[in-house]
Amino acid sequence: MYGKLTPEIVDELKRIVGEKNVTVSKDEMEDYSHDEVAMSERIKHYPDVVVKPGSTEEVSEIVKIAHREKIPITPRGAGTGLSGGCVPIYGGIVLSLERMNRIIEIDEENFTVTAEAGVRLMEIFEAVEKKGLFFPPHPGDTSAMVGGVIVTNAGGARAVKYGVMRNFVRGIEVVLPDGEIMEIGGKLVKDCAGYSLLDLFIGSEGTLGIVTKGILKLMAPPPSSLMLIVPYNSLHDAIKSVPAILKTGVIPISLEFIEDDVIGPTEELTKKKWPVMRAKAYLMIIVDSTSEEEVMNIGMKLTEVCIENGAIDAFVIDTRSKQEELLEFRGIFYEALKENMAEILDISVPPSKIAEYVEGTKRLSEKYGISLPTYGHAGDGNVHTHIMKDEGWEEKYEALRKEIHELGISLGGTITGEHGVGLTKKGYLKEFEPKKVELMRSIKRAMDPDNIMNPGKIVDI
Amino acid sequence: MYGKLTPEIVDELKRIVGEKNVTVSKDEMEDYSHDEVAMSERIKHYPDVVVKPGSTEEVSEIVKIAHREKIPITPRGAGTGLSGGCVPIYGGIVLSLERMNRIIEIDEENFTVTAEAGVRLMEIFEAVEKKGLFFPPHPGDTSAMVGGVIVTNAGGARAVKYGVMRNFVRGIEVVLPDGEIMEIGGKLVKDCAGYSLLDLFIGSEGTLGIVTKGILKLMAPPPSSLMLIVPYNSLHDAIKSVPAILKTGVIPISLEFIEDDVIGPTEELTKKKWPVMRAKAYLMIIVDSTSEEEVMNIGMKLTEVCIENGAIDAFVIDTRSKQEELLEFRGIFYEALKENMAEILDISVPPSKIAEYVEGTKRLSEKYGISLPTYGHAGDGNVHTHIMKDEGWEEKYEALRKEIHELGISLGGTITGEHGVGLTKKGYLKEFEPKKVELMRSIKRAMDPDNIMNPGKIVDI
Repeated sequence: MYGKLTPEIVDELKRIVGEKNVTVSKDEMEDYSHDEVAMSERIKHYPDVVVKPGSTEEVSEIVKIAHREKIPITPRGAGTGLSGGCVPIYGGIVLSLERMNRIIEIDEENFTVTAEAGVRLMEIFEAVEKKGLFFPPHPGDTSAMVGGVIVTNAGGARAVKYGVMRNFVRGIEVVLPDGEIMEIGGKLVKDCAGYSLLDLFIGSEGTLGIVTKGILKLMAPPPSSLMLIVPYNSLHDAIKSVPAILKTGVIPISLEFIEDDVIGPTEELTKKKWPVMRAKAYLMIIVDSTSEEEVMNIGMKLTEVCIENGAIDAFVIDTRSKQEELLEFRGIFYEALKENMAEILDISVPPSKIAEYVEGTKRLSEKYGISLPTYGHAGDGNVHTHIMKDEGWEEKYEALRKEIHELGISLGGTITGEHGVGLTKKGYLKEFEPKKVELMRSIKRAMDPDNIMNPGKIVDI
Repeated sequence: MYGKLTPEIVDELKRIVGEKNVTVSKDEMEDYSHDEVAMSERIKHYPDVVVKPGSTEEVSEIVKIAHREKIPITPRGAGTGLSGGCVPIYGGIVLSLERMNRIIEIDEENFTVTAEAGVRLMEIFEAVEKKGLFFPPHPGDTSAMVGGVIVTNAGGARAVKYGVMRNFVRGIEVVLPDGEIMEIGGKLVKDCAGYSLLDLFIGSEGTLGIVTKGILKLMAPPPSSLMLIVPYNSLHDAIKSVPAILKTGVIPISLEFIEDDVIGPTEELTKKKWPVMRAKAYLMIIVDSTSEEEVMNIGMKLTEVCIENGAIDAFVIDTRSKQEELLEFRGIFYEALKENMAEILDISVPPSKIAEYVEGTKRLSEKYGISLPTYGHAGDGNVHTHIMKDEGWEEKYEALRKEIHELGISLGGTITGEHGVGLTKKGYLKEFEPKKVELMRSIKRAMDPDNIMNPGKIVDI
């Protein structure tokens, strides 16, 4: 049983962070009752109080109170998550990291940026670019905050070459469930000192502690890049090209597949035309390299490989402005579908199984009479299927959703590639991976015995 | 208290794996009483029995007996470790994976190799090369086995560009302390389904379960590579070049620093001459790229950068045979020092701190009158200092060793970059990181409540 948030505790919180950084007003707390997941009306939940600390020490003080009083505490970044991970389903305290928004250091010798949890990714991009450096991970919504992208192990389209957040976190500062502040990792490239607590916190969705600071790995920006749009007569052909591309020794920054049925709604929304010929499916490939010349050579090589593997044609997009236009177009798919969408799914399968997976969703789409437009990361097998709000969707939603996930699992996949388990996939995790859930529960109990840290996410205790 | 290994249990083990795969003979068990760590006489310990299962099911049966009888069980690969991780300090069962030596599948579409735990790295290299593929991680001793390099999160010289083992493990099969067989991960590139059990087992040194199979990520081999040997008047100058090199946007495969004092003993041992001019310090740089021409361009660019940053000269080694000769020379440093060496240390510091660290070890070398030749991975800050058996070393060893580790910690470093904690660094981990050790202990207790899995390694319970 959790403790109750009394007026005395609210006063105590105000003394820590200042009166204006504590709110119990329902109106002001609305923003903190949900994340970006569609259907949020169904899963939104109000906290009892929202607290906005300005420093790690303040976070620690707040957690000590939650620990003492056994009050649930749900950390929150920008709220851009897609699985309900920051919804305070047991009420209690929402601890928003929005005020901890300082970039502390850009270390040009060790290629790291140290930032507080509330810094937005777009701010990181901008700050490091000014120093001639580059932060590769690029999740869909760059207004996401550092703490959030660390604890959800965010991915994005550039994971093919550069990897996901996990590969770019060198160190964290974390406030443990008893309020103790711990630094894990640092500016180190290699660290083998026992169990990787760093990797345990990455992807823990705030259930083991509150990440207050991150030390992220930077790189030099690739001198040259180039985009290819490659149309195919079928998705199957497009997917078949992927291993052939990777076998050339070129690892693209991103290697996305697009089915034509997302192009129409996007054109409508953006009032812009898809700039190349229309076909059933496309690969959108971005490559980078050390020189302009080399990147053109790579472009020619990949064009050849794609044509050999059934592409209709290949269009080189070599001007920066045209590339950006296309990236914007790609970025808008989700927005274009969102209006009429019940949920964006996040299944990840072995890359060779993408076509089989998408064909399976087409059968399900016919069976249920619900459209399921799909796009995703062909290079890494992370496929975003959208369940649309077609007629009668409410009655079919649960059964259809489950069948799609079962399809992914049957192909050697996982229920989430980059959005996390949160609240909305907790049931599947338990159903498909009962023994792993047991191990995760034992870890959660060991590290947060009172179950106050973002309770009810990933696993139930 | 642990249970006793009775003759009845030995018979039971024989029924599982066959009589010839169980031994209790002291002579035959000698090989299983230590690893490669120098000073092994001090830390070697005999098991009560060595068992060699031929399949995961047999491993599971053996672990079930250990679980039932509360007998310690120490998994063992090739025994090439350098921190005593596979020494059965509480006796009991050594479970050697040497018979589980099959490469199960090379998947050319998903770029993975699936191998049993007892396959040697050199066998992986050879098998994937035949398929035109490439496995980048390259720890010093390629006779190491797949299971061992996974559970120690092995590193090696190629980590600068490609990362350590952790970055190349897609999935594992593991036998848990209760004997249950679990598959974690798979051929997936992205997986966010809860706490990363995969990353918890990677680097767990056999203390949480026995890894019986690994699914490892492969790549296409880089079409062209080139080596540079760059002499400097001081190590400080050499280290100063490193961020300048990385800022060009080129990430070398490997970027090693060498001090001249390891060259002499290596020349003596190999009867070969160091092929370029002698100087105080060197960088050995290997780069790869998509074409012969591009790799030459990169070589010229890096030469320029090194000269600008104080290099005396730069020698391009562009023939394959000469490159191999030099790599062999580099590989032999450890062997050359080994004869007269007490221990190879494995401290990892932020890359910018390497020079400061090495200068610190020079002061300690003078203070103690013990030579401390050093080489290491300049690109990733993992520095191998060797404590030599100079006169009177026995009395000075403990104090000197501790001061070196304190130096590393004071520079933001960690006690082990790639060799693991095992037995020989357990005391330092507890001393330098008491709170983390508490968290690790709570995880160990949660996952192995009877403490039968490789007890006494990483942390004590």
